[in-house]
Amino acid sequence: MKDNTVKDDTPMTLDDKKRIAAGWFKELQDQICDAFEALEDTLSAGPKTDTPAGRFDKKVWSRADQNLTPNASGSELHGGGRMAVMRGRVFEKVGVNFSEVHGTFSEEFAKQIPGAQESNGAFWASGISLVAHMQSPLVPAVHMNTRMICTSKSWFGGGADLTPMFENETDTKAFHSALKACCDRHDPEYYTEFKEWCDRYFFLPHRNEPRGIGGIFYDYLDRKEWKDDLAFTKDVGTTFKDTYVDIVRRSMNEGWTAEQREHQLIKRGRYVEFNLLYDRGTTFGLKTGGNTEAILMSMPPEVKWP
Amino acid sequence: MKDNTVKDDTPMTLDDKKRIAAGWFKELQDQICDAFEALEDTLSAGPKTDTPAGRFDKKVWSRADQNLTPNASGSELHGGGRMAVMRGRVFEKVGVNFSEVHGTFSEEFAKQIPGAQESNGAFWASGISLVAHMQSPLVPAVHMNTRMICTSKSWFGGGADLTPMFENETDTKAFHSALKACCDRHDPEYYTEFKEWCDRYFFLPHRNEPRGIGGIFYDYLDRKEWKDDLAFTKDVGTTFKDTYVDIVRRSMNEGWTAEQREHQLIKRGRYVEFNLLYDRGTTFGLKTGGNTEAILMSMPPEVKWP
Repeated sequence: MKDNTVKDDTPMTLDDKKRIAAGWFKELQDQICDAFEALEDTLSAGPKTDTPAGRFDKKVWSRADQNLTPNASGSELHGGGRMAVMRGRVFEKVGVNFSEVHGTFSEEFAKQIPGAQESNGAFWASGISLVAHMQSPLVPAVHMNTRMICTSKSWFGGGADLTPMFENETDTKAFHSALKACCDRHDPEYYTEFKEWCDRYFFLPHRNEPRGIGGIFYDYLDRKEWKDDLAFTKDVGTTFKDTYVDIVRRSMNEGWTAEQREHQLIKRGRYVEFNLLYDRGTTFGLKTGGNTEAILMSMPPEVKWP
Repeated sequence: MKDNTVKDDTPMTLDDKKRIAAGWFKELQDQICDAFEALEDTLSAGPKTDTPAGRFDKKVWSRADQNLTPNASGSELHGGGRMAVMRGRVFEKVGVNFSEVHGTFSEEFAKQIPGAQESNGAFWASGISLVAHMQSPLVPAVHMNTRMICTSKSWFGGGADLTPMFENETDTKAFHSALKACCDRHDPEYYTEFKEWCDRYFFLPHRNEPRGIGGIFYDYLDRKEWKDDLAFTKDVGTTFKDTYVDIVRRSMNEGWTAEQREHQLIKRGRYVEFNLLYDRGTTFGLKTGGNTEAILMSMPPEVKWP
């Protein structure tokens, strides 16, 4: 296995940092896929037990070998990634994407990104992005994303937020308290700030309603030593994985009604509205000529606007 | 019946024009609802014949009696409209909305609208907007919208475009040739210009594909006498109604396969992507604090991103 660490006394170059961060995001992708496949294997009751356990389908893509969308915005994009998608009996559709890309932002777009005008639009970005839509309306949908971005500046961003179809206190408390403990391990100020940021961000103004019950959201994180900011970002990923696996396991074996399913399909419509109307990740991806298939893997498999 | 005409020798005020235009859009809404209900009644074969014929549910709304979304953008909106929605056996979900609103654009938004800075953001708008999602994958989905907008300037805009799930030459030719004949009745230049505008507008850059087979699209129409511009806009509405009714009637009695239905549900996803990512009407509505229920009535009843 490749050694993704550097000795503490070696001065780290920006290239080292990029390699280490991208290495982590890719490793986390594997860890999450393994954990989710294990959930598929352990389903023991409910309407989907006769369905075979799902497995991730992983697909490596690169700018060169993909027929990517011509980029009307004037941005340029190189690099690639690895999409992992599973259509299973617990996870109706879950996408876990790793990517490592670089290129040049259009002039217009560079104005909106810190340090991008100073780099003449040049950027590098790597991250992991995950959206899970579940078979059971009793199991919350979830989103997680962490990333490192470099222009003339460099920072981490990310977060995780939970969207129950039917809110229940046990899941809500478990999710929030795991993220709070994670934040507190790194800085006593983080949780309050990042929780509020999440509530502000995952909100649908046209419906005057939140997308789900929130979680944490952070961006432009360049506050401590780089390795400390990385450590926090890694902890967010690991904490998300462990707490979401617990949440899924808690309800996945219960049955559900047709009415609950209908409610789930409608609630998913709000998810679509948020992603296409407001989500910065979607906009960032589509505006920089990203891989449309990977970006829109977050769309729910089945939705209703009755 | 209210007389919506004025004598040719009477000088027309802007208020007259607003009253006449809004009166037409409302009348067209009734005409279309009647024509579509007649289609529901005449279904004679295919998998939905045992389902009762659909009827429009009409709902008057006004800014005062609706719990509308607080408008984060700083725009103000008054007025109201009449939503008409039918969930039938030919039309799986069709929304036909009439609205007449006025208010003040936010400073930011006023910059993007002709004449709105000169009016200090004040605007008036009335129009009819229609989206139909059909039960049969063999019957095209359709969109039509015509409107009059006043700031310190005043103009008409609108158009109609067809989205077949499976393109067929008969429908495509019928739709294009009816719109061409309509345009040609008013100006020999209109068709080429408005057809190209439609092709440019109803395009999904992130997928590098058109939304459907196009039609016509026009905006800022203030070229001739006001009554001539109105006459064209009326003709677009009437032409749309007659040609789409013919198109629906041609295929509505045929049966379809599960594969064709699946294809339809996926194709509808592109419709959702276009509306939420790019559609100016959706953006205009949501940014001016419009009626979210009316605006998002265009969403398909059932969609898949498998």
